[in-house]
Amino acid sequence: MIPRYSRPDMTAIWEPATKFRIWYEIEAHACDAQAAIGVIPAENAAAVWKAKDATFDVARIDEIEAVTKHDVIAFLTHLAEIIGQDTARFVHQGMTSSDVLDTTFNIQLVRATDLLLAGMDRLLAALKTRALEHKDTVRIGRSHGIHAEPTTMGLTFARFYAEMDRGRARLVNARAEIATGAISGAVGTFANIDPSVEDHVCAQLGLTPEPISTQVIPRDRHAMFFATLGVIASSIENIAIEIRHMQRTEVLEAEEFFSAGQKGSSAMPHKRNPVLTENLTGLARLVRMSVIPAMENVALWHERDISHSSVERAIGPDTTITLDFALHRLAGVVEKLVIYPANMMANMNKFRGLVMSQRVLLALTQAGVNREDAYRLVQRNAMRVWEQGADFKTELLADKEVLAALTPAEIEEKFDLGYHLKHVDTIFARVFGAQ
Amino acid sequence: MIPRYSRPDMTAIWEPATKFRIWYEIEAHACDAQAAIGVIPAENAAAVWKAKDATFDVARIDEIEAVTKHDVIAFLTHLAEIIGQDTARFVHQGMTSSDVLDTTFNIQLVRATDLLLAGMDRLLAALKTRALEHKDTVRIGRSHGIHAEPTTMGLTFARFYAEMDRGRARLVNARAEIATGAISGAVGTFANIDPSVEDHVCAQLGLTPEPISTQVIPRDRHAMFFATLGVIASSIENIAIEIRHMQRTEVLEAEEFFSAGQKGSSAMPHKRNPVLTENLTGLARLVRMSVIPAMENVALWHERDISHSSVERAIGPDTTITLDFALHRLAGVVEKLVIYPANMMANMNKFRGLVMSQRVLLALTQAGVNREDAYRLVQRNAMRVWEQGADFKTELLADKEVLAALTPAEIEEKFDLGYHLKHVDTIFARVFGAQ
Amino acid sequence: MIPRYSRPDMTAIWEPATKFRIWYEIEAHACDAQAAIGVIPAENAAAVWKAKDATFDVARIDEIEAVTKHDVIAFLTHLAEIIGQDTARFVHQGMTSSDVLDTTFNIQLVRATDLLLAGMDRLLAALKTRALEHKDTVRIGRSHGIHAEPTTMGLTFARFYAEMDRGRARLVNARAEIATGAISGAVGTFANIDPSVEDHVCAQLGLTPEPISTQVIPRDRHAMFFATLGVIASSIENIAIEIRHMQRTEVLEAEEFFSAGQKGSSAMPHKRNPVLTENLTGLARLVRMSVIPAMENVALWHERDISHSSVERAIGPDTTITLDFALHRLAGVVEKLVIYPANMMANMNKFRGLVMSQRVLLALTQAGVNREDAYRLVQRNAMRVWEQGADFKTELLADKEVLAALTPAEIEEKFDLGYHLKHVDTIFARVFGAQ
Amino acid sequence: MIPRYSRPDMTAIWEPATKFRIWYEIEAHACDAQAAIGVIPAENAAAVWKAKDATFDVARIDEIEAVTKHDVIAFLTHLAEIIGQDTARFVHQGMTSSDVLDTTFNIQLVRATDLLLAGMDRLLAALKTRALEHKDTVRIGRSHGIHAEPTTMGLTFARFYAEMDRGRARLVNARAEIATGAISGAVGTFANIDPSVEDHVCAQLGLTPEPISTQVIPRDRHAMFFATLGVIASSIENIAIEIRHMQRTEVLEAEEFFSAGQKGSSAMPHKRNPVLTENLTGLARLVRMSVIPAMENVALWHERDISHSSVERAIGPDTTITLDFALHRLAGVVEKLVIYPANMMANMNKFRGLVMSQRVLLALTQAGVNREDAYRLVQRNAMRVWEQGADFKTELLADKEVLAALTPAEIEEKFDLGYHLKHVDTIFARVFGAQ
Repeated sequence: MIPRYSRPDMTAIWEPATKFRIWYEIEAHACDAQAAIGVIPAENAAAVWKAKDATFDVARIDEIEAVTKHDVIAFLTHLAEIIGQDTARFVHQGMTSSDVLDTTFNIQLVRATDLLLAGMDRLLAALKTRALEHKDTVRIGRSHGIHAEPTTMGLTFARFYAEMDRGRARLVNARAEIATGAISGAVGTFANIDPSVEDHVCAQLGLTPEPISTQVIPRDRHAMFFATLGVIASSIENIAIEIRHMQRTEVLEAEEFFSAGQKGSSAMPHKRNPVLTENLTGLARLVRMSVIPAMENVALWHERDISHSSVERAIGPDTTITLDFALHRLAGVVEKLVIYPANMMANMNKFRGLVMSQRVLLALTQAGVNREDAYRLVQRNAMRVWEQGADFKTELLADKEVLAALTPAEIEEKFDLGYHLKHVDTIFARVFGAQ
Repeated sequence: MIPRYSRPDMTAIWEPATKFRIWYEIEAHACDAQAAIGVIPAENAAAVWKAKDATFDVARIDEIEAVTKHDVIAFLTHLAEIIGQDTARFVHQGMTSSDVLDTTFNIQLVRATDLLLAGMDRLLAALKTRALEHKDTVRIGRSHGIHAEPTTMGLTFARFYAEMDRGRARLVNARAEIATGAISGAVGTFANIDPSVEDHVCAQLGLTPEPISTQVIPRDRHAMFFATLGVIASSIENIAIEIRHMQRTEVLEAEEFFSAGQKGSSAMPHKRNPVLTENLTGLARLVRMSVIPAMENVALWHERDISHSSVERAIGPDTTITLDFALHRLAGVVEKLVIYPANMMANMNKFRGLVMSQRVLLALTQAGVNREDAYRLVQRNAMRVWEQGADFKTELLADKEVLAALTPAEIEEKFDLGYHLKHVDTIFARVFGAQ
Repeated sequence: MIPRYSRPDMTAIWEPATKFRIWYEIEAHACDAQAAIGVIPAENAAAVWKAKDATFDVARIDEIEAVTKHDVIAFLTHLAEIIGQDTARFVHQGMTSSDVLDTTFNIQLVRATDLLLAGMDRLLAALKTRALEHKDTVRIGRSHGIHAEPTTMGLTFARFYAEMDRGRARLVNARAEIATGAISGAVGTFANIDPSVEDHVCAQLGLTPEPISTQVIPRDRHAMFFATLGVIASSIENIAIEIRHMQRTEVLEAEEFFSAGQKGSSAMPHKRNPVLTENLTGLARLVRMSVIPAMENVALWHERDISHSSVERAIGPDTTITLDFALHRLAGVVEKLVIYPANMMANMNKFRGLVMSQRVLLALTQAGVNREDAYRLVQRNAMRVWEQGADFKTELLADKEVLAALTPAEIEEKFDLGYHLKHVDTIFARVFGAQ
Repeated sequence: MIPRYSRPDMTAIWEPATKFRIWYEIEAHACDAQAAIGVIPAENAAAVWKAKDATFDVARIDEIEAVTKHDVIAFLTHLAEIIGQDTARFVHQGMTSSDVLDTTFNIQLVRATDLLLAGMDRLLAALKTRALEHKDTVRIGRSHGIHAEPTTMGLTFARFYAEMDRGRARLVNARAEIATGAISGAVGTFANIDPSVEDHVCAQLGLTPEPISTQVIPRDRHAMFFATLGVIASSIENIAIEIRHMQRTEVLEAEEFFSAGQKGSSAMPHKRNPVLTENLTGLARLVRMSVIPAMENVALWHERDISHSSVERAIGPDTTITLDFALHRLAGVVEKLVIYPANMMANMNKFRGLVMSQRVLLALTQAGVNREDAYRLVQRNAMRVWEQGADFKTELLADKEVLAALTPAEIEEKFDLGYHLKHVDTIFARVFGAQ
């Protein structure tokens, strides 16, 4: 986790204080459930809630852990300092450390996901706004980096919207994957604790009881979770690469926002670097790199080994923090992206109408010219454009052989941008629904 | 794709003949749609279906492609040889090669997924059968590879069932991800083809129209698809590792099936290697290795570049073929796995009752012995077991200080396996529903 | 392995016939060594060489394997059919299958590496030729995709040369990593075979004896090997991305070679797609995807498990074949790359001298103008260029305040390209040595 | 970076204070070189060294950066506060930020590598000590987790030694890969700075000048570096998995050291978990996960983009810190590993001599018994061992048909462990040289 790529809301989820607070809530709810089935006295369960508004002393817990070498015991010892030894002895009965640790990890992931969903919502809103704004802003579509046919800037944003909207749905699924809890004991048999405790704790904390756990919650869930983040990061990279291309000097169809006073931007006005989207390209790699370790974590030995733990200590916070930051950074870039429609038009016209050559070719054949002749006609005019800088339409309108097949109006029509835009509304309706 | 790790049903999906058949169907359905809106004559559209029962000549198409350097044109040329040049000129109008190629790729992935689902169903059935069969077959649960508390073999199978059942649900989602088609033209604007053609073709072929495509169907869908296969492969590895552990000489709680006549198995009866599950461990890596490239494929330049294509030519077939093979191999292993309940019991008793030491410790404290004394009592008896090979229960029953706190019946009860199995039915009901 | 991305020289290495030939040579050399120490009769060892010019019948071996379920036994059975049963019984004595299989795999990798080195040499030669050819071809250097300062096309090629030359050195190291053989028996103790056999076989086949093997040659060697291929593939991607950028419509500083008659290139002269370098981008991903599985293969259980085998059956051929193809494809692209120096100059001048603004700023401060004033002077002229399309040098030469600090000659000098090229020879000498 | 998996020596390398110190040294050495060629006055260069013993105020630099939004400028501003504005204006002349940043990153990596080499040396020493100690400690070799033939514990350690020794050599290569510096300006042409400055700075700081850089040092070097760390991590995993297997309850041939007083270890003496090696398994995944991002970083756009930077901010520290910690953790585990030779012998004898069945089979055929009969003889005795718990040698010595072919002494000899150990010294000499 790198501070400069972190937002406080997300880092807070992964702080020790948050973790201990969740541990406490699990323990306290478990006591309630144990009281309900008569395992511990109701008054003791109630007394555990005395710590409800307490602030757990992280330094103190660390101090105890340095002696006990066991984090959960250290916490329980500190809890006893708050609620009293008599109450504390009823806490954690029949439970195993993993019951607390795994359930907590999932709660942290759920909360992280809720922040990620908020980040996606911000990004989706920005993409939609810009899509509607530039629905009809024509620019050249490119395949292989080469001019193909006209499209619009709005369609580009709409495409990213649709992609991120799929990402959002995947994230909702991923949240459900890891929104489970387990209070099932040393090997998951509930030998020492009644399943009703798990039910109660999960219900109170917004989780589903894990149908069958061992000592741990199965890690295929987490593999799916991190894989989903990896896909979303790849979509972020997709948008970032588009913007980086648009900003490169020779294209200059858009720029990341530069504040008016930003140093260097006016003495070297050509030197505005798309550093935010370049950064996002790197952040995407960081998010993605957790995917394979998360998958390697699935195959634990028998009822559990602890090989997954160090991996999760790293990728749990790092991946969610980085993706959260990336979503907001990208949302900001999209919200404020400076778009240059005039440059788009200039780029499209770089080869003076040549991008329409395919329509002309088709029109000639549809007008009855055989394929070879049609090709020859287009070619000789195209080459004048390519080699001598002529204007394609002008050349065609002056070519008698072409005029024998197509009227000037028909030729003009081939250069009509409206032809390319006629279904933009249809596509927008597909993406955004009826507006 | 390695022949020895392939099933014919799956490889058939990826054969050129299958691909050309799908191309044909897309083109023919597109003609119907074009006729419906009056772009081409109805009789010509109908005539395209003349090739319905034709076998496309792959060698001939390759021959043409060697000249034209373009696969779709080569196919269309061959199609013209079958349906006649007059009909053929109405085929593919307004379409771009990617319309055919991308839609076909998704159809192949959908069909591949249907086979994968069948494989998972076979595996799920096997896991359920073995789970029910061994619901009460006690074995020791292990954390960190070390004996912990008793569990049952049936719970292990039930756990794998639940995990694979989640995998199945993920695969259904993944199928929906890639069950889309696009007939939207060079940059996805429908400039040269009406959206109704896409609607019709997709409806006929069991796909959803891609809401917004460029020249290609967006690759975040495929990233999610391959990521899902990677998670399922990791679950296969999880099961494989369990079986490999069970079969190792010192554990020997199960063995992959050996046919009676299998050479070597009786002259060296100890030397039966879990080669199938070892192989599955490797196959899991092969499936997983497609995940990152599929994610790297998401960020295409502008309306498309073709960097994704070579990757998909490899991972499309290889990953689905390998996973399909792995699912069936694992199903076979599970179906026929030879299980040794007696060895399970022997393993559990390796340290003559020591696995119950925690229950005894707890019982002593609950009986009012303070924690330090309880620990000391358990320890001194445990050490006699550990160092001198004594039996734990016998030692406890002979320890006066223990007997001062616990009756012989209470001590006996701590060694009752039923204690650990009391919630097995509950867990089974969670996993399999009411039986 | 995809035929279209394969060269026959490399695929030949991985064909069954080649494998069986190597198996034979290992066995025959081993017999010589066994004869030398008196384990088998010399005449029998000599007789094994009767098959020296034999062609092994792959179909026949497959047929036998279908019965024996063991590839090495099937081969030995077939060998007996050729050299006679009496001779054959002296073959493979004291050896274990892995002795043959692992040594063979390494021989294949060594041969594959020799082809890869040849491919790198071709690529290096092409890069050097183009570097020398365009040593002084000026183009704008770009950071963040934005114009920075002038550089030359030759420096770009020289840079790629240096990178690939490092790659070559790494590949030589990687070759040494896997150029080992092992004939050490079931668990590597030489219990059943004398170490001198290993020495002899390795010496004859150009390998180093593995200092300590188990049943297998340790897989950290192969992990390093495939990791090295992954790095080289990433360098290929680096070059490919540069060319793709140069070919994009708005940049057009270079194009992949198009044969004169290539369809479409003249009727749509703007539509020449960098499909080869896009393809190389994808192939790089395919090579890279073997790296992690190769690393996961390192941790085998005890003296070996067979989890690595399926992985290697795939990545052994696939990765070397793909990289070999990619190296030659890239070499061809570089050899024939069409370079447009005029476009490079036009691109550099897109903003009429603005790329020199930093030199002017520096000159002003060095001339004693304070930083704020210098900045203001550059800025007001730069903005006229940026907003009104003026020429930067012309503006400066007309700015009295600028002229108060710098003479016209000094201003002119700031626009001298020679300033940027003065150390090109130095850099070339570093990369290529004295010419 | 996770504090609990970090050693202070390594984290110190990555602290801001260290970074600023290196920045300072680069700038000061560059001033010396600039003075030597007359670009700046010698007394000013000398004056820069006034800060030699200064402590840079990280908080103050952060404060300035919050305003300037540029880390190098912030540092230079703070430096001016120390050495005075008059001296400071001669610092950094003709340099670009990347000259400082990239050279610094490599210096940090070099230093990190030196610590890693020290860690490997500790591990190598431990492995060698344990190898020599247990050179003749017999245990069963296992393939596929199944008993195969005897080997020794010393051979296992020697094997790990050889693997780690290869890793060390790779790390030395990797160090050379990244031990380069660059002071070459905005696009690497040395337009604004003489190459002699780079030479001097590199010489002073133990680096080689990068033969050809752009704005950055080429990232194939770093890809190779991180790939090498990934291979070493995989070797760590290999050793960790071996130890985890040895410690599992049923095997119990070794245990990670438990301090006498360690809680839980005596009341539940069977419950000592190999948590350190499990942890190492996870740490290996964390190190490995940097490999692919580092490779993705190679393909930068033109003379540089900054997509690599965020990746390196994470993996630079995280990967070296984690690997460093892992090496020392593993060294500690090996140094103190508790080894149980008696259990090794008991495990080997689990099937009462059956592991020798192959030697007996071979002896029978060598004694002239035909293969089918030999097989039948071994089989019938083996099955009595397997099914009735008999002792294999005893059975053979009582089998008349066997005795017809082999004398009792010959049979006895087949069970001689010395047979398997006769080449242990040879192998040790290969690994450790003459002792």
